[in-house]
Amino acid sequence: MTDYWKDSPTLAARLKRVLAVMDATLDSPSFPIRDSVITAVESKGKLLRPALLIIGSSFGHAADPIRIEKLAAAVELLHVATLVHDDIIDEAPIRRGRPSLHASLGVKEAVLAGDWLFSRCFLLSSESAEPENARGLARLIAAVCSAEISQDLEKFQYSTSVRRYFRTIAGKTAALFSLALHAGATEAKAPVRITQSLRRAGYNIGMAFQVIDDILDFESVDGLPRKPVGRDIAEGLCTLPLIYALRADRPGMEALLPRAGHRGEVVSSEVTAAVSALATKLGGPELARADARRFTSRAVAEIGRLPPSPERDELGRLAERLLHRAY
Amino acid sequence: MTDYWKDSPTLAARLKRVLAVMDATLDSPSFPIRDSVITAVESKGKLLRPALLIIGSSFGHAADPIRIEKLAAAVELLHVATLVHDDIIDEAPIRRGRPSLHASLGVKEAVLAGDWLFSRCFLLSSESAEPENARGLARLIAAVCSAEISQDLEKFQYSTSVRRYFRTIAGKTAALFSLALHAGATEAKAPVRITQSLRRAGYNIGMAFQVIDDILDFESVDGLPRKPVGRDIAEGLCTLPLIYALRADRPGMEALLPRAGHRGEVVSSEVTAAVSALATKLGGPELARADARRFTSRAVAEIGRLPPSPERDELGRLAERLLHRAY
Repeated sequence: MTDYWKDSPTLAARLKRVLAVMDATLDSPSFPIRDSVITAVESKGKLLRPALLIIGSSFGHAADPIRIEKLAAAVELLHVATLVHDDIIDEAPIRRGRPSLHASLGVKEAVLAGDWLFSRCFLLSSESAEPENARGLARLIAAVCSAEISQDLEKFQYSTSVRRYFRTIAGKTAALFSLALHAGATEAKAPVRITQSLRRAGYNIGMAFQVIDDILDFESVDGLPRKPVGRDIAEGLCTLPLIYALRADRPGMEALLPRAGHRGEVVSSEVTAAVSALATKLGGPELARADARRFTSRAVAEIGRLPPSPERDELGRLAERLLHRAY
Repeated sequence: MTDYWKDSPTLAARLKRVLAVMDATLDSPSFPIRDSVITAVESKGKLLRPALLIIGSSFGHAADPIRIEKLAAAVELLHVATLVHDDIIDEAPIRRGRPSLHASLGVKEAVLAGDWLFSRCFLLSSESAEPENARGLARLIAAVCSAEISQDLEKFQYSTSVRRYFRTIAGKTAALFSLALHAGATEAKAPVRITQSLRRAGYNIGMAFQVIDDILDFESVDGLPRKPVGRDIAEGLCTLPLIYALRADRPGMEALLPRAGHRGEVVSSEVTAAVSALATKLGGPELARADARRFTSRAVAEIGRLPPSPERDELGRLAERLLHRAY
């Protein structure tokens, strides 16, 4: 975490406090597998969503730092809870460079650990958020679940349209980015014009973020702690790079793609490497990257409409940085 | 539902409205497996928890019927969500006489369906409940998760103490009964003395309810739509009848009980029948029933301290009825 935000000392200091709130919230001796959950939570990502919430709160005049940090912690706990349940769903052995909760503790404990994290998230938000934002968090989980189920139902079909893909990633990723920026601003009582700009900026940053995430499944980068390359391909997910590659040469791609029969079986890395190589040759990842660039441009344009401030510049830099990330 | 409450027409009418709120809350065209979830929810139980919440609300002067029915719906959705996740956890093929969601849709969809139900529950409670009660619901999920995990970690060990068993069922069952009565009363601004009595009454009713539930695992009753007899035994759960039977003849019982190696494997109905027969001979279910009776007496005593009203009498009858139920 600290490394990622090393050029933003003020934000880094606040994110440290968010982590402390998360730790305090999870410090419940009565929860039997608390330590495993804390380990999973602490092998933490970049705290992007709490960072967005804090940045959003700078655009209002009435931000109470303690409430904002609690709500930021709630947003990250919600994210981690969805990751824990995702890992069960995707049968993922590794998350953030460590064995997933589901691999280390079993399915039952992972289901309950995710539920517990949701409950901690709602406890924090019901303690600290405006009712509107508490409702927003509840609605958001529904959106994420819908998107995840849609995606799951379409696995191994390779018939997802670009439009449908965008709708799915809007629900599973962009909605939370959007909520984080917007909720921070509404808690701080920013004017509606600004909260709406932030909502749209968050949406576009989130869309670009997920497209890049999906492109990274096609690119091997040595030594970086991220999800294994080819995992989406092995799972039969039809992400944007694949959609474009299928458009360019459907028979060629279909000859290589894992079929529904492989669901549950292990798809070999030779298969995923071959899919990845042909898709790349057909320009799939490149076309997807152009879309990500477009989302980022829209985000940057929205950010340009915000009143000038160091946080506005921070948000602009973050949008660009997430576009160019390699993990 | 209607059958169970046929002697309480006023309550039955309100529970019908609770069901309508639940239906409206779940009527989200964007959720892909909505219909399966609604079917699962509608193969519904007795709506005990919403009934308790409505009864609780009668002890205050400020009950807004619409808010109360929304909160009652939230409580039932929370219960159903935990059932959906429980079924994954227990690998249960049947729930309320129908295939469980997890058996009909798969683990992934059942995890997400449960999450979706939680999100609907929190949406309702953040719309309709006092912040204190919204927080209570969030805390409750944590308590249920803790209890479920404790129980799971102790499976096949047959070393659970009576004290520990009571703590587990307090978290997994009695806490929600207690919350329902208490939340109804606090929403209606009942005096603290009354809300506290209701909290204790709910706790004791819930404890008796779960003890009876665990006894029913040892008793076969023909033609009743309930969970299969011997399921807890097959899963290596150490419930109260077993604890007492082990106390009476540990070597005899241990010779019959399924061992940890059977986890995941199918335990035959011959094994569970033999365990059940010996435990019954040793008086396990009978001793457990005496405890259930004790909890019910305590509940009835608390109920006796409430101001007289038709709802008070209804609650007393319900406590007795749950003690003597056969399903």
